[in-house]
Amino acid sequence: MKDKLWDHIARVRALSPLVHNVTNFVAMNNTANAVLAVGASPVMSHARSEVEAMVGICGAVVVNIGTLDEYWAGTMLRAAGEAGRLGRPWVFDPVGAGATPYRDGVSAELLALRPTVIRGNASEIMALTRTNTTVTKGVDSTAASTEATEAARRLSRDFGSVVCVSGGTDVIVAGELTVSVHNGSTLMTRVTGLGCSASAVIGAFVATGGDTLETVTAATALFAVCGEIAAEGVSGPGSLQAGLLDKLHNITATEFADRLRIA
Amino acid sequence: MKDKLWDHIARVRALSPLVHNVTNFVAMNNTANAVLAVGASPVMSHARSEVEAMVGICGAVVVNIGTLDEYWAGTMLRAAGEAGRLGRPWVFDPVGAGATPYRDGVSAELLALRPTVIRGNASEIMALTRTNTTVTKGVDSTAASTEATEAARRLSRDFGSVVCVSGGTDVIVAGELTVSVHNGSTLMTRVTGLGCSASAVIGAFVATGGDTLETVTAATALFAVCGEIAAEGVSGPGSLQAGLLDKLHNITATEFADRLRIA
Amino acid sequence: MKDKLWDHIARVRALSPLVHNVTNFVAMNNTANAVLAVGASPVMSHARSEVEAMVGICGAVVVNIGTLDEYWAGTMLRAAGEAGRLGRPWVFDPVGAGATPYRDGVSAELLALRPTVIRGNASEIMALTRTNTTVTKGVDSTAASTEATEAARRLSRDFGSVVCVSGGTDVIVAGELTVSVHNGSTLMTRVTGLGCSASAVIGAFVATGGDTLETVTAATALFAVCGEIAAEGVSGPGSLQAGLLDKLHNITATEFADRLRIA
Repeated sequence: MKDKLWDHIARVRALSPLVHNVTNFVAMNNTANAVLAVGASPVMSHARSEVEAMVGICGAVVVNIGTLDEYWAGTMLRAAGEAGRLGRPWVFDPVGAGATPYRDGVSAELLALRPTVIRGNASEIMALTRTNTTVTKGVDSTAASTEATEAARRLSRDFGSVVCVSGGTDVIVAGELTVSVHNGSTLMTRVTGLGCSASAVIGAFVATGGDTLETVTAATALFAVCGEIAAEGVSGPGSLQAGLLDKLHNITATEFADRLRIA
Repeated sequence: MKDKLWDHIARVRALSPLVHNVTNFVAMNNTANAVLAVGASPVMSHARSEVEAMVGICGAVVVNIGTLDEYWAGTMLRAAGEAGRLGRPWVFDPVGAGATPYRDGVSAELLALRPTVIRGNASEIMALTRTNTTVTKGVDSTAASTEATEAARRLSRDFGSVVCVSGGTDVIVAGELTVSVHNGSTLMTRVTGLGCSASAVIGAFVATGGDTLETVTAATALFAVCGEIAAEGVSGPGSLQAGLLDKLHNITATEFADRLRIA
Repeated sequence: MKDKLWDHIARVRALSPLVHNVTNFVAMNNTANAVLAVGASPVMSHARSEVEAMVGICGAVVVNIGTLDEYWAGTMLRAAGEAGRLGRPWVFDPVGAGATPYRDGVSAELLALRPTVIRGNASEIMALTRTNTTVTKGVDSTAASTEATEAARRLSRDFGSVVCVSGGTDVIVAGELTVSVHNGSTLMTRVTGLGCSASAVIGAFVATGGDTLETVTAATALFAVCGEIAAEGVSGPGSLQAGLLDKLHNITATEFADRLRIA
């Protein structure tokens, strides 16, 4: 698969797909910038008066529950439902799943709509399968991504989704298949909303069609490799946020191939 | 007009007008920072319980429909209406006009309140006059700004507004008069919300009084010149966002005059 | 007290407390990043369906009324109330107090719940005690922090709060005690939401326990010293935003001690 990943990156730049995001307030700006930096075009919108119309003009939908409330949750369910009806891929980012019963209830409703892709940290993925018996610590994971592989397999089997568990190693599961991306930087965990940005970038990639395991892996690898390169040149998380966007925009095929470590 | 533009820039720095923004979640942070960088003072507020009171203490109002919903649309209409009653200038940024019928309906209601200034990309300006028969691509334009000049003239005539069409060339129309600003950088299209920031900066400039065509041109030229200078020194869109704010803050009269290309 | 401040900074890094923020849209991203940069973990959430549950898993709560509305104000009151019931510290940031009667009314309701800490600029602190007879200029202060010392003392006495007045000098009042922090940079006033970030960082510090006057002073001093160092190396407010986050993350005990000017 390794040799095909750059083709997907080039394809996003060429097609510039439109991605509809119903996402959280914290990460909206850097999420939109990440989608632009990889060459795609973001739309952020949540009004019930236009949700189906907006889904209809977009190539993929991203639903992120980071700052959900009762109104937004209704929009999320309608956006996901409309994506399903139209056969458009959609990505579910279960931010903070496990932190409160309300989050878990909305997550269960969204899961029942069978997301094309689920991306979260290990705590969140484990919370979705109720296999995590520890208390989730807000929106940051208390478990390593590799601990969540079994939960990811179960989610993939139960809901037909490709599941991406972010962490020191990013683990991507599609049914019986598993891919591991060994890029990234621990400094990325000190910038808010990078997981949200990764989910939106995955949305841009699955919008272009092609095998979902491949496009999710390409998006995940691109994000991790760019974060790794950017982190080397900076003195802290503030500069990393800008440097990551720069690198997502200007990375070359050679830079990508030289860094990529997947298995 | 060229020789008068810096005076307007200096005037904003000296008067530091207060600008009330009812704007979108994606661009709120960089919008507020752009208003601060040019020397003015932003207020972001949307509660119906205070909208008229907030308009009452501000020198101008900016209404941006990027992430509108039913509640926010009501606030926008009340803010625009109150601005009209008090004789305060207000700026309308029709983000994503043409993308959904809901956006077009709210836009029509806002237009009927006769904005002092309308600023959008070519697709949005054409959508407002229903002269754009192509499907709008979300919030990014699919047309060149110069294609929208006729639509801008019609809007200016019908609603008495100064109309600014952003793009490779920024075209500003006031009745029969047209000014073109030939500054900027294509990299600016890879940063989210810069159009929103430009609208808010225009709000700061019209708040100081003076001829509206001149103040809108000064704001537009300042933004484009600073973006052009900042883009030369950066490796991507992440750095451009910070560099643009720096340059809006520290640009000198000489730098501005050396770069400015208007006709 | 000066010698104890670094211990509190080290303690936040070691314990990484979870801080629940009900805050404004403008500053959410940089606020979350500031909390991460000092080593703590932010949660941003506002749904009434989960507010008590979220307060229950967090070490402190921060309530910021910058972009309040009727729904959010209800959440803020419930979050503050639950913090009080559970004995968790909570911080009140009265953004724009004095600008509209609605803001003043909600502020009075929140004050009645006896915040552990109140942090605002001089105009806001004076507005809370109705001692400011000038019109507040939106969210930016028109008075020096030292002019608000008497108002801060009254708030501290009436509500049992530690009160921090931000400005050229940061003044911290606890009953009869007063501490002044003489660090910072005027360029910080040209970046939106840094006061909001400071309030959230204070939330992280009070979450670790210890004497409240000391933890509030440590958080305030850390923020001011890092802003001062970061401002020296940058060409404008855009770079300062990133540089401040970098410095919050990487400042050492020696750098802090060399710069700190408190009395």
